[in-house]
Amino acid sequence: MSTYKAPVNDLRFALHDVLKAESLFAAMGLEDASTDVIDAVLEEAARFSASVLAPLNAIGDQTGCTLDKATGEVTTAPGFKEAYAQFIEGGWTGLTASPEFGGQGMPGTLGMALSEMVSSANLAWSLFPMLSHGAVEALKHYGEDWQKEAFLKPLVAGHWTGTMCLTEPHAGTDLGLIKTRAEPNADGSYAITGTKIFITAGEHDLSENIVHLVLAKLPDAPPGPKGISLFVTPKFKVDRNGAMGERNTLRCGSLEHKMGIHGSSTCVMNFDGAQGYLVGAPHKGLMAMFVMMNSARLGVGVQGLAQSERAYQGALAYARERLQSRAPKGAQLADKPADPIIAQPDVRRMLLTTKALTEGGRLLAAHAYTQLDTAQHAADPQARADAETLVSFLTPIVKACLTEWSIEATYNGQQVFGGHGYIAEHGMEQFARDARITTLYEGTTGIQALDLIGRKTAASQGAGLKLFAAEIEQFIADNANNPAVAEFLPVLGAKTREWGKLTVNVLQRAASNPEELGAASWDYLFYSGYVALAYWWARAAAAAQASSQPEAFKQAKLETARFYYARVLPRTLTHAASMESGADPLMAMDSLRFGD
Amino acid sequence: MSTYKAPVNDLRFALHDVLKAESLFAAMGLEDASTDVIDAVLEEAARFSASVLAPLNAIGDQTGCTLDKATGEVTTAPGFKEAYAQFIEGGWTGLTASPEFGGQGMPGTLGMALSEMVSSANLAWSLFPMLSHGAVEALKHYGEDWQKEAFLKPLVAGHWTGTMCLTEPHAGTDLGLIKTRAEPNADGSYAITGTKIFITAGEHDLSENIVHLVLAKLPDAPPGPKGISLFVTPKFKVDRNGAMGERNTLRCGSLEHKMGIHGSSTCVMNFDGAQGYLVGAPHKGLMAMFVMMNSARLGVGVQGLAQSERAYQGALAYARERLQSRAPKGAQLADKPADPIIAQPDVRRMLLTTKALTEGGRLLAAHAYTQLDTAQHAADPQARADAETLVSFLTPIVKACLTEWSIEATYNGQQVFGGHGYIAEHGMEQFARDARITTLYEGTTGIQALDLIGRKTAASQGAGLKLFAAEIEQFIADNANNPAVAEFLPVLGAKTREWGKLTVNVLQRAASNPEELGAASWDYLFYSGYVALAYWWARAAAAAQASSQPEAFKQAKLETARFYYARVLPRTLTHAASMESGADPLMAMDSLRFGD
Repeated sequence: MSTYKAPVNDLRFALHDVLKAESLFAAMGLEDASTDVIDAVLEEAARFSASVLAPLNAIGDQTGCTLDKATGEVTTAPGFKEAYAQFIEGGWTGLTASPEFGGQGMPGTLGMALSEMVSSANLAWSLFPMLSHGAVEALKHYGEDWQKEAFLKPLVAGHWTGTMCLTEPHAGTDLGLIKTRAEPNADGSYAITGTKIFITAGEHDLSENIVHLVLAKLPDAPPGPKGISLFVTPKFKVDRNGAMGERNTLRCGSLEHKMGIHGSSTCVMNFDGAQGYLVGAPHKGLMAMFVMMNSARLGVGVQGLAQSERAYQGALAYARERLQSRAPKGAQLADKPADPIIAQPDVRRMLLTTKALTEGGRLLAAHAYTQLDTAQHAADPQARADAETLVSFLTPIVKACLTEWSIEATYNGQQVFGGHGYIAEHGMEQFARDARITTLYEGTTGIQALDLIGRKTAASQGAGLKLFAAEIEQFIADNANNPAVAEFLPVLGAKTREWGKLTVNVLQRAASNPEELGAASWDYLFYSGYVALAYWWARAAAAAQASSQPEAFKQAKLETARFYYARVLPRTLTHAASMESGADPLMAMDSLRFGD
Repeated sequence: MSTYKAPVNDLRFALHDVLKAESLFAAMGLEDASTDVIDAVLEEAARFSASVLAPLNAIGDQTGCTLDKATGEVTTAPGFKEAYAQFIEGGWTGLTASPEFGGQGMPGTLGMALSEMVSSANLAWSLFPMLSHGAVEALKHYGEDWQKEAFLKPLVAGHWTGTMCLTEPHAGTDLGLIKTRAEPNADGSYAITGTKIFITAGEHDLSENIVHLVLAKLPDAPPGPKGISLFVTPKFKVDRNGAMGERNTLRCGSLEHKMGIHGSSTCVMNFDGAQGYLVGAPHKGLMAMFVMMNSARLGVGVQGLAQSERAYQGALAYARERLQSRAPKGAQLADKPADPIIAQPDVRRMLLTTKALTEGGRLLAAHAYTQLDTAQHAADPQARADAETLVSFLTPIVKACLTEWSIEATYNGQQVFGGHGYIAEHGMEQFARDARITTLYEGTTGIQALDLIGRKTAASQGAGLKLFAAEIEQFIADNANNPAVAEFLPVLGAKTREWGKLTVNVLQRAASNPEELGAASWDYLFYSGYVALAYWWARAAAAAQASSQPEAFKQAKLETARFYYARVLPRTLTHAASMESGADPLMAMDSLRFGD
C-alpha cells in the first residue's frame, strides 16, 4: 500500500521562489498571507492530509457508500465522517472564504495548495467539502442578502455542504435540454420537480444539511439555455431567518456504480416539489452556473495534478527498491542479485515524464490561481480585468491538460510496477481509476478544448493568448543574459510565436468553415498546454538557480527542464501538424460509413 | 449495456481482399483453408462469441472468481463453465492444432480471427482456453514423445487446460532470479517446490485437469537465466501412459484482487514437492519459455485489438444516438431538440482515431500471423527463415502497439460517453479496466520496446526491419501508377526511409553508449508501429479499391486512410525528435534527485 508525503517543498518553491507569493499577495491587500503564514498552513495541511485522509483512501475504495433505500440516507465509508469533523474543526473549509462569512480570507492560491494535498491523499473524500466551494461562489455573487446570510456561514463553517445539480439523463453538455421545472409557490419560494444525475455528494452523513444549487426551468422559460434558472434547494428547509426546518421533498434515488472514487457518493437526486429559492434573475441561471463551474474546473485540474503526484510518489519508491535485471552499463549493486529498475532508461522516461508534467503543472495551476486572486483583489481595475481575461483563458488548459496528464501519470505509475500495478494491494490501480473521472466531469476534455478555442480565443480575438504570450516574451527579454535559461529561451520564443501563428491560421480557416474550430480544438488545447509548460519549466529553472534551495534541488529542476524540452515538448510537432491538416479528414466521412 | 457484433466483414476484408488468404494458405499446403471454410468459421465464431460469450462479460466482472480456502478449489462466474463446455463441444480449442493431436490444422491466422472475436466478447473468459496454446507449443517443440502423447490430445480437445508458471514475487521481467526448485525423484520425475504469482487460469472449474508449465531450478543449476529448467506439472498427476491419477501437491493459495478481468482467476500457486517432468534439456527452460511467450505475445496484441474493437462499437452506437448540442454548421435534425454528437468534429476525431488504429491494427496482426504460418508450413526453407525473422521483428510491435492503442481506444470510448463512460451500467469502463492488463502481462510495453530495438534489431543488424522495409518498397513500386494510393505513397516512402535512418542513428549511438538503446526504445517502438500502420492503411486503400466490396466500404477505407495520414501518422514527428535527443536527458539525473 502506497503512502503519501505532501510535496511541501515543491509547493514552497512554486509559491515563494517562482511566484513570489508574499509580495504578490501584499500588493493586492492580502498582507495576512505572509511567507510564515503560508508555510504554517502548508505544514499543517500536509500533516492532516498524510495522517488523517491518506489512510482512508483504500478503505473508501473498498467500502464505498451505502444507500438505505427506505430512508434515502447515505452512509459513507468508515472514518470519513470523523475525518470531516476534524477538517471543519481545523477551520479548513473556510481557508479562502471571506471573513464576512466566517472565512479566513486567505488567497485562492493557498487554497489550491490545500486542495492538491487533500485530493492526493484521498480524492473521493475531497469531493465532499470541495463542492461547497461552487455553491458559496454562486450565492456570494448572485444570492439575495438573506440567502447569503442564511446559507454562507454554515457552508463556510462546513456544517453544511453544497452540491451542483446540473446534469439530467438527456442533458449533460447541453444544459439547454433540462426538464426539471420550478413552479412558483404562494410564499415566493418555488416547487422544484425533476431528476438530476451524477450529483457528487448529493447525499451523505458528513454534514447537518446539504445545499443543492439546482438548475430548473420556470413556467414561462424560453426554450434552450436562455430559459434556465438557478435555485437553492436544501435537504432540510431553511427559512428566511436561516433556521433549519423540516425535511425537504427531495431524496437520493440511487448511487451510481462507478469505475473509481467509490468513497464519493454520486447520486441520482429526485426533486418532488421540493422547496427552493430563486438565486439571481429568472432565466439567468446559466451565468451563475458558470461562476460555479469555472471555479470547479480549475479545482478539477488540481485533482488531476494531485493524482499525478500520488502516482509519481508510488512509482518512484518502487523504482528505487525493485531489484530486477542489471543497469545497461553494468551492475550497480554488485552484491545484490540485480539493480533497482530506476537504472533502466525507459523506467526513467516514465518517471521523468510524470515529474515534468506534475511539477510543471503545479506552476501552471498556481499561476492561474494567482490570476483569480488578482481578479478579485487587485486595486487597479485594468489589472483585475486582465487577470480575469487571463484566468479565463488558462482555465480550460489547466482543467484539461492537468487531468489528461493525470491519466498518463497514473498509467505510467502502473507500468513502472509491471503486473503489480494491476493488483489492488499496491494502490496504483486505484489512482488510475480515481483519476479517470477528472477528464469527464465538469466538462470533458473535448468541451474544454472547444471552450479554449471558441469562447476563450475566437470570441475575444485571442485576448487571453495575447496576455499570456506577452508575459512569456517579457520573461524572455528579462532573462536575455541569464545563463541559467539560455538553452531554453530560443525554443520557448519560437514555440510562442508558432502558437500565435497557428491561432491565426485556425481562426482564418474557421471564418469560412465553422467546423474548423472543433476540428483543431483538441490539438490546439494540447499544443497550448505544452508551450505553457515550456514557459513554466524555463521559469522554474531560472527561479531555482536564483533561490536559496540546496544544490541538488537546483540541479533536479534544471535536469527536469532539460528532459521536458528534449522529450515532452516535441509533442507540439504532432499537434501542430495534426491541426494544420484541417477539418476535411475529420468531416469527410458520412456517419453511416463509420461502421455497421 | 453494450452489445457486441463481430466485425466479420472487416475480417473477411483483411483475410481475403488484403492478404489473399486462400492462395496464400494453398501455397503452403493448407488447401483446406479455402475461402468458403474460412467464411464458415468466421460466421460460426461470430455467432458463438456474440450470443454465448458476450452476455457473460458483465456478469464475470461483477461476480469474479471465488476461492474455497479449505479445498483450494476455484469457482468461476455463473455461465462460464457452461460456455466452456459449448466451446470444446464446438471443437474451437483445436482449430489451429495439428491433426496429429486431434486438431483441425487450420492456419494460425484464422485462429487469430477466432481469438479476436472471443476476446472482444469476453476477455476474462478468453484467458481460460488461451493459455493452453502456449503449453501446447512448448510440449510440441520440446516434450518427450510420451509427454506429447499424454498431454497434447486432452489439451487440444480442451478437456484439460494449460498455464505458464513463470513469475515469482521477486522475479518478473528478470526470470533468472526465480527460486522455485526441482529435486529429482527416484522415478525420473521431479519434486517442484516454490511459489508462483500472477498465474492466469491457475485454478478453476472448467476443465478436468490443469497442466502447469513451470520454470524451476535444478539442484546443480548455474545462477541466472542459464539455470532455468521447464517442468510439466499437472494438477492431477499423469503417468507415462497418460492416465490421470491422484491430486498433485500444488494448490491455489489466493486470488489476486485486480483492476479488471475479474472473471479470470489470477492465482498465487503454491507447489509443495509437486510431481513434475522435465520438458526439454536441463537448464534450457528459458528457450522453451520463449516459444510459449512469443505465441502468447502476439495473442495479447490481439486481445488489445479486441478491446479496441469493442470500445469502438460502443462509442459509435452512442455517438449516433446521443442528441446533444447542434452540429457546427447548423441543425441536422431540426425536428429534434439537438443533433447526434457524431456531428461534432472532436467526437469524430476520437472515433476515427480508434477506427484507424483498430482496422489498421487488425491488418498488422493478421500479417504477422501469416508469417507465423509461413514459418511453420512453407516448403521453401528460405521463405520459412525469412518469415521467422519477420514475425520475430513484428511480435513486439504487435504486442505493444495494439495493447497501447487499446488503452487509447477504451479511453476514447469513455470520453465519447462523457460522464456515462464512468458508470458501470454502460460497460465502457469495464473495457478500459480489462484492456489495462494487456500492456502489463507477457512483458510490459517497455520490455517489448527493449526486445524490438535490442534482440530484434541491434542483435541482428536490422534483419527484420530490412525484410519489412523491402516489402513496403515493393508495394510502393507495384503501385507506382495506382491512383487509389497515389496520395499516400510519397509519405509512406519517406517515412520508411526515415525509419532506416533513425535505426542507423540509434545503433551508432549505442555502439559507444549502451544506454542509448533503452533510451530510444519506447519512441522507436511507436515510430515503428505508426509507419507499419501507414503501410497497412495504404494497402487497405488499394485493396478496397480493387475489391468487390460495396462503394460505401471502399469510400470508408479511403477516408480512414486519409484520416490516418493526416491525424495519426504525425505522431512519428514527436517520436523521431524525442529519440534523436539521445540518452542524456534521461540519464543525467542521479536517482537521489528524483524526489524525496
